[in-house]
Parts: sequence; structure tokens; C-alpha cells
Amino acid sequence: MSQDSASSTARPAVGTSLQDIIGHAKEYGFVFPSSEIYDGLQAVYDYGQNGVELKNNLKNAWWKAMTQLHDSIVGIDAAIFMHPLTWKASGHVDGFNDPMIDNKDSKKRYRADQLLEGKAEQYAAEGNPEQGQALLTEMGRLLSAEDLAGVRELIIAEGIKCPVSGTANWTEVRQFNLMFSTQIGSVAEDANMIYLRPETAQGIFVNFLNVQKSGRMKVPFGIAQIGKAFRNEIVARQFIFRMREFEQMEMQFFVRPGTEMTWYEAWKETRMKFHKSIGLPAEKLKYHDHDKLAHYANAAVDIEYEFPFGFREIEGIHSRTDFDLRNHQELSKKKQQYFDADLDENGKPYGNYIPYVVETSVGADRLFLAAFCNAYTRETTGEGDSLKERTYLKLHPALAPFKAAVLPLVKKDGLAEKAQAIAASLKSSFRTVYDDGAAIGKRYTRQDLIGTPFCIAVDYQTMEDDTVTIRYRDTMEQERVSISELKEKIGYAVSVERILEAI
Amino acid sequence: MSQDSASSTARPAVGTSLQDIIGHAKEYGFVFPSSEIYDGLQAVYDYGQNGVELKNNLKNAWWKAMTQLHDSIVGIDAAIFMHPLTWKASGHVDGFNDPMIDNKDSKKRYRADQLLEGKAEQYAAEGNPEQGQALLTEMGRLLSAEDLAGVRELIIAEGIKCPVSGTANWTEVRQFNLMFSTQIGSVAEDANMIYLRPETAQGIFVNFLNVQKSGRMKVPFGIAQIGKAFRNEIVARQFIFRMREFEQMEMQFFVRPGTEMTWYEAWKETRMKFHKSIGLPAEKLKYHDHDKLAHYANAAVDIEYEFPFGFREIEGIHSRTDFDLRNHQELSKKKQQYFDADLDENGKPYGNYIPYVVETSVGADRLFLAAFCNAYTRETTGEGDSLKERTYLKLHPALAPFKAAVLPLVKKDGLAEKAQAIAASLKSSFRTVYDDGAAIGKRYTRQDLIGTPFCIAVDYQTMEDDTVTIRYRDTMEQERVSISELKEKIGYAVSVERILEAI
Repeated sequence: MSQDSASSTARPAVGTSLQDIIGHAKEYGFVFPSSEIYDGLQAVYDYGQNGVELKNNLKNAWWKAMTQLHDSIVGIDAAIFMHPLTWKASGHVDGFNDPMIDNKDSKKRYRADQLLEGKAEQYAAEGNPEQGQALLTEMGRLLSAEDLAGVRELIIAEGIKCPVSGTANWTEVRQFNLMFSTQIGSVAEDANMIYLRPETAQGIFVNFLNVQKSGRMKVPFGIAQIGKAFRNEIVARQFIFRMREFEQMEMQFFVRPGTEMTWYEAWKETRMKFHKSIGLPAEKLKYHDHDKLAHYANAAVDIEYEFPFGFREIEGIHSRTDFDLRNHQELSKKKQQYFDADLDENGKPYGNYIPYVVETSVGADRLFLAAFCNAYTRETTGEGDSLKERTYLKLHPALAPFKAAVLPLVKKDGLAEKAQAIAASLKSSFRTVYDDGAAIGKRYTRQDLIGTPFCIAVDYQTMEDDTVTIRYRDTMEQERVSISELKEKIGYAVSVERILEAI
Repeated sequence: MSQDSASSTARPAVGTSLQDIIGHAKEYGFVFPSSEIYDGLQAVYDYGQNGVELKNNLKNAWWKAMTQLHDSIVGIDAAIFMHPLTWKASGHVDGFNDPMIDNKDSKKRYRADQLLEGKAEQYAAEGNPEQGQALLTEMGRLLSAEDLAGVRELIIAEGIKCPVSGTANWTEVRQFNLMFSTQIGSVAEDANMIYLRPETAQGIFVNFLNVQKSGRMKVPFGIAQIGKAFRNEIVARQFIFRMREFEQMEMQFFVRPGTEMTWYEAWKETRMKFHKSIGLPAEKLKYHDHDKLAHYANAAVDIEYEFPFGFREIEGIHSRTDFDLRNHQELSKKKQQYFDADLDENGKPYGNYIPYVVETSVGADRLFLAAFCNAYTRETTGEGDSLKERTYLKLHPALAPFKAAVLPLVKKDGLAEKAQAIAASLKSSFRTVYDDGAAIGKRYTRQDLIGTPFCIAVDYQTMEDDTVTIRYRDTMEQERVSISELKEKIGYAVSVERILEAI
């Protein structure tokens, strides 16, 4: 074995940039630009052979943390297509807009609010933060009043110019709905416009009574869902952080009105524990309370992770009141009530009510990006001539695409066959790769780069006593163990049970 | 325990209809009509709290059978949105059409080919199968020649009338593309029409070189994918068998040209084994060779399952030649070639070529329906006054939504707490439900109806010697075991490993 166990002197390399992350993700099969052979599709990405495993492992951990650890939470999988009235009730048809403005000379389009925010930042940078704040306050007032002409006048009064044409030759400000629409049915009179869901939550709300009744669920209970959602973002950026097609992991917890703040606090804590259980470190996670609440919420907090581009939301926890169920009840004329047989302080049943909802909503792609950024590690070991750089993915073993690699020291003398037999014996238990394609040091490096936690080397001693070495990814230390121990030793270490037990 | 072990005299009830299946699926939380509170969305369904678990277990079994059992197969997860040229290359923009005709009086729309097929069936029913066959041949000729006016004339000549209006007042026949489209980007000049993918396969083809290079894959190798696809079917029916939004599990296996028929035969066999491994019985499965091949295929076979409405396709295995990669190469101007360093019979490397492809394509929703129909069991036991009917889901334990239910005989005397502690101890290993809500016989029935394979009863003896009874779903037999044995005894029985080992 040519690699020594040098971890004790390892020094982290500093300054991982988003470009490093994007490059590594592409080169090692985690994330590819969509339809790359056709020069890509903006703000859409595909998960490659290693990315899909990491993402599935994250989804599986979340799913089990919700529907397996909690008796009171079940899952569903609602379709992306829903009846269009759903989005009327939720407020998305009327209110899910961004204010847009075009420059007539460059033909470029901008979000009007972002132009003004940029100007406010400029004031702050120039030492006039009060002037910036005043601008933001005025913008907020105009947008709340739906005074789009006023927003345009403000842009012109502030002398904001298009960065491309350099002119202030602006069109009107218009509201642009972020939902994608399509036609269902044939093109004749029975065709209907439907939307691609902009959030998965509504699939849960419209199924609330179906699940409650068929599952005999008692409040408080939750419904969890993982699925795609779509938003026609004008400005989509930061790799997979903000995409036009993305995946959500949402759970709506239905509670008795008046108890929502207790549950809100409880879920804040439980969800933070989850992120730590998958290996995100406490110092890179924080809460961020919302100052401005959405129209449906009476409390809201984000859990933020420190990406290379700063602290950003990976999950939102929202107390949504009965906003959604009440609107669905009004529009559908179907009662969305629950009968609570528990007794109140006067000894009477609480009776019928529309439950309040506490929502936990994770961006699956953002969680992927957080786990990937956190795992990406460059280390320098040694000094002078023996200085070595090493890059590896320090993924939680339960999240790693491959759990083990079986590597014969050489191909001859039966070592290859022995290694293949070992790989085959592990394969039905966990994902194992066999590799005999280069010097063993190079093969360790390959596994480091995709985050494989355990490398099993088969050498001449193996042929004599049926022992192998396990080389640990993070420490590079090696241990000699019997082949018969492998399945159990590795099996538990890489299991999702380990994550569940840590929550 | 009030239920006796009467399985030895059990007699299957006959004649399960699709209506029985739909009713059971809705009542017990497997499948709900989409957006039901808004009276539904035609040909779209949601998976309920038990359905989502069954479906996830099926997807997981397929995924692991592909990407974990085979070193030479990896997965990807490409976006639903793709560059529109993808669908030009694949032939879907020009050729993915159904010929439609409207009746001017009823305003109803029909598939022209289905009207003629109906007429041909009528001839056959009237004892003139030759005349029916001649009609189909003529229709095939006209459709191949894109002679839509001829198709209309044929409909009129055959005297086919609209079943609603009773008239032959037909419009022209037009081709109707089955792809859903939407606009990406904002509404200005940079907006582009894109499609919702009508199949997942193309997401694999456009990533062929990304995966091959970043994963250092050697032909033959495969890329697997699970994901949603969308087709604007005019006539969608048979519950979740043909939906407008559905899920595919596809694997494209890239091989050296000339070896494709060997691989085609191998995959035919391997895939049949898979369906048996999840519990579908051999007598309900058969191959159906395609007489007419799609333009991209040189061999094709379906694996059919016997649904209540007859034998129908659950999976297709197609030898697709180099049709897709070649078209992508032409349209993208990016070489889609592989360099094969293996030596041919003359000792020279095979060199550069566009690989041929053998595809295996499962409809995930169809597989769900097959597993569900196969599991749905009504049995009659006993005679006369002691005659009992029992309905249960005979699901493979690895597919069942819940693996175990823990049921205290009564709630008092500490039995409830004991049972809860047992449930809690199993929960991180497999999905376990605790239920104390009715007489124990009724609670067994509840678990039977959703297919829970193991019911663990906690009784007074448990309090003395830490043993419980396991009641087996299919036989209703009971066995006394120690609490400490539960995790291992049940854990392996319900694991996906059992499926993988049976393939």
C-alpha cells in the first residue's frame, strides 16, 4: 500500500468557491447542465450517476425521518398536474408575480424590485444607508399598493440605467406570473389550461380529508411529500440553488387552532436536528426569523446553511394558520373540517374545526448542494518535497453514492477473482463497486473524489488467511479485518438507521 | 385471540373486477383521484399514504436491481424540462401524433384509427374477420402515407357514425401531437416553447457521453432512470393504467453493434425474473412479441401481466439500434461515439462507433397496478354459520406499506406502554405502526386490508416473559417469539435484499 496514514498532519485548503463545486460536480458525475449537447437549458440541471445516489439517499433519509420515525406522519405522492382552481384558492393565480421592466434599447428584462434593491445597496456602499433604506421603504409601499406606474417613476427618478444599453429608456412595469402553464385535453373546446405546480404543499391540502379519513388519522398529524415543482424564475442563478425545475420535501402538520405556536417551536428544533444528523455542522447552520410574513403565515423561520456564497435558506418552517384549507373549503364548497373528540377544559369535545397547519419545507436540491459543499474537502499533508494535496468528499456514509469499493492489489494470481467474489457477496446488502483499473493509490483517489467511505483491498495475505484491509476515507487509516466481518461492519455504518437514530 | 388459523380451508373468491380494485385503492389510502375536491382532473391520480409506500418500495427494488446488482449499470436523474431540439432528434416533434376527427354535431372528438378499429372488430363479431382485416390493412396504408383525407373518406365510406350524435357529419382528420408544451423564460422575445418529456429515455441519451466519461464506463454498460413523463392522451382510461402524467423506470443498455440481439435476449430473461421476484406469479406473466416495429427498433417485446381487464403491457424491451444517438449527433453536431479498445478477431481494436441500445422500459404505475391487483385477495373460510369472508393484500413483505403492527391486547395494565416501547424499538429499522384502537380482531383486519405482513400482539404473558405473538398475514397462523428476536426475524423478511437475492 503506497499511501500512508497522514491525516494527523492534514491541513484544510482554504477558500472553496462555487466554481470549484460546480467543476467537481460535473467532472465526477454529480450534476450536469441539462441537455448540454444542445448548449443547455438555462437554470435546469440533471443529476449524474453519483448525484442521483446522493440525492436519493437524502430524500430517503428525510422520508424515513418523517414517515417512519413518527407514527403521526404519513406520506403521499400527488400528481404535478392539479385542477386549476387549486391555484386560485392558494392565491398563486392572482398573487404569484414578479414586477418586470424591459429596457427598450437593449431589449433586456429585469425585475423592477431588484433594480431598486441594487440602487439601495449602492447608497449603502457610498455611506448613505439611510437613503437606501428610505428607497426600500418607498418601493415596499408602492408594491403593496400595486402602484406599478409609481415603481417605474421611482426607477426613472433614481436615474437607474440598463447595464447593457446604458439608457433609462424603460417600458411600463408589468406583473409576470411565475407559474408554467400548459393545455390539457385536445385542442378543441374541451381543452383546459392547467399549471405545473409551483409548490407541492397544495397536493397535500386537497388530499387532507382523503388521508385523514382513509388513514383514520387524529389531529395532530402530518402529511409528507417529496416531488417536483416548477417556477419560471426570471433570474435563476447560483447553480442548483435556484432552478426553474426543482424538488421539494414538504410536510404539513395539522394541529388544533391555538396550539400552533407550540408545534412551530417543536418542529424548528426537530428539523435542525435532522440537518445535523446528516452531517451538516452546527456552526454552518442558523435560524433566520422572517421579518415580513407571507399573507398566509403567522410565524416563519428559515434554517440557513453557509454556502460558498453566504448563508442561504435550505428549509422554511411556517405557521400557515388555516389559510389554505379555508380557501379550498370556500372555493370547492366541500367542508375541510375535522371533528376533534378530545375534551377541552370544560369537559366538552373540541368538536369541528378547520385545523391550523405548521409546514416544514426543504428544498431537496439545496440540501443536496449543502451536503455536497460541506463534504468537499481539500487538504494538504506533509511538507516540502513530500507535500501532497488531497481532495475528497467527506459525505456521511449513509449518503455516499457507493458504500464500498473492492480493489485487488494486482489483477494476477487470483486476486482479481477473489476481489470480485467479495464484491458480489456484498452487493445485495449495499452498493459496492469493483475496480482493478490502475495503481491502487490512484484507485483510492478515485473513491475519495466521489466520497466512498470504505475501500477494501485484496492482497496476497488475503489469499492465505481470508483477511482484507479496510481503508477509511477520512483518516486514510487502514485496518485488517476478516472477510466474514465485512457485511456487518460496513452494513450498519452506511445504513439510514444511523441517521434516524441520531435525530 | 379470537381469530383462528383457518387458512388451510380458505377458498379464493372469484371475479375481482377493476371496480373492486379502484374501490379498495381509494378506501384504504392507496390511490385517490387527483384534486377530488374540485371534481378531479381526468386521467390524473394521486398516491395516498399507503400507495406512496408501495410505489416507493417498487421503485427502490427496481433501482437496486439495476444499479446495485449490476456493476455495469449506473443511474441518473435528468430534468423533465429538456432542450426542445431533443424532441426534434427523437422524432417526437414530427411523429408523436394521433389522428383525430371531430363530429360537427356532437362536438365530440375521436381518434380516427380507433373508429376504424372498432368497425373492424364489428366485422369480426359479425363473422367477417377477413373484411375487418382488409379494413385495417387499408387504414395502415393510408396512415403510413400520411393520407389523412383518405382516412376521412374511409370513415365515411364505412358508414361510421358518432355514437353521441348518431351522424356522420365529420370534420377533417388532423394530426394531434401528444406532447404537452409550455413557455420558458419571460413572455418577451426570449421566451421559448419547451415540452414536458413524453419519455425519460432521451434524458439518458443526451447524457450518454457525460456519464460514460465521468464514470469511465466501458461498453457494454447501462444507464437507469426513474421519472415522470407526460402524454396528452385523448382517450385515457383503465384507472392508473393509462394516465396523462405517469412514471417510467427505464434503462438504456449501450452495446457494441452486432451484439444487440444477444443482449436483447438476456434482458428479456432478466426482466422477467424481476417481475417474479416481486411476487407476480408466472401464470399471470407472458411475453408478447411486436409484429409491427417502431421506426427506431429492430426487435421489441412486451412483458404482459394479466389485469382484471386482460393481458396488458407492464414493460417493453426494445432493441433501438443507434437511432437516438445518431440523430442527436446529427442535430447537435457533437460526436456521440465511443472508442472500444477491445480487440476484434483480427487483433485490432474495435475502435470508434455509435453504440447500439437495448432498452428496458417499465411503467411504474402499471407495475403498481399489477402488484396491487395480484395482492388483492378475497377468501371465504368455514361453512354455514361459521362462514367468513376475508379481504387482504398478499403483498411481498418488502413491498408492504407497513412491515409490522404492534397491538396491545388491551390498553390497561401497562400493555399499551409495553407495546409502544416495542414499536419504538423497531421503528428505526422498518416501518412499524402502533394501534390500540379497537378489538384485536378488528385491528388484524385493518392490517390485512393494507397488507401488513406481521402483526405483533402484546398480551399478559408478554408482561411476564417478554414474549409476543407474531400473527402472519397470509396464513393467519400465530407464533410465540421473544421480543429480542423481533428485529432480526422481521428485518430480513421485509428487506429489499430478499428481492435482489431472488433475481
